Amino acid sequence: VHATALRGVRVHQLPAFRDARGTLTCGQVNSPLPFAPLRYFVIANVPADAVRGRHAHRRCHQFVTCVSGSCTLTVDDGLSRDAIALHDSTTGVHLEPRVWTTIENCSPDAVILVLCSDAYQVEDYITDYAELQRLTDGT
Amino acid sequence: VHATALRGVRVHQLPAFRDARGTLTCGQVNSPLPFAPLRYFVIANVPADAVRGRHAHRRCHQFVTCVSGSCTLTVDDGLSRDAIALHDSTTGVHLEPRVWTTIENCSPDAVILVLCSDAYQVEDYITDYAELQRLTDGT
Repeated sequence: VHATALRGVRVHQLPAFRDARGTLTCGQVNSPLPFAPLRYFVIANVPADAVRGRHAHRRCHQFVTCVSGSCTLTVDDGLSRDAIALHDSTTGVHLEPRVWTTIENCSPDAVILVLCSDAYQVEDYITDYAELQRLTDGT
Repeated sequence: VHATALRGVRVHQLPAFRDARGTLTCGQVNSPLPFAPLRYFVIANVPADAVRGRHAHRRCHQFVTCVSGSCTLTVDDGLSRDAIALHDSTTGVHLEPRVWTTIENCSPDAVILVLCSDAYQVEDYITDYAELQRLTDGT
């Protein structure tokens, strides 16, 4: 586990098995996946100048890995900001709730897998950065 | 849900959201993911002539989707066999236990995501096709 300077952001190294049949990367609950996902989503075909994300979650944990190509994951806990280069399925980033996240600089072949601790709920999204800052001040 | 001719194999269509920022495909428990995964793995860099899988599981359910490129998923319940072409993250295949599975014909950019209902257990693997046939006869 590699901790970043930010509260609630941890970079995990996932095991990879490489042989003549290709590469297999895996994660399972507690090793190092910090939750059993109830939801997943896959992002692809992102134009080079597009920015995705730009929100935080109130309760949902996420685990982000770039399974093809590369992108930049920017994380912001309301106090400070960090940019994590993702270019390998062996890197998984655990985002606790209340981390403002953007995905950008996607390569043409970038495919991003996000595992989520909770089912989709629109009320769980924090889409106003000022609100995240107010919530952060209160902790 | 598209049922194949085989016991224990169901092909699901996943929702996709496409806009100027790219494509997002998602699945969550019961919609249509049939279980909360305790494990996931990602396969990539598979040579065109390589064959992966070639086993079944005793208890573990799997949900297979090809999130980049294309491949052929061959499924066999011990009685009959079917080949499913995967080339889109919007197709997810639910494999119940006791389905012999192979992955082949991978394109150079193929990335295959597999969500598993159970944690890894070596005893859960059926690696002898004759054993699968014996188990199938018994049901």
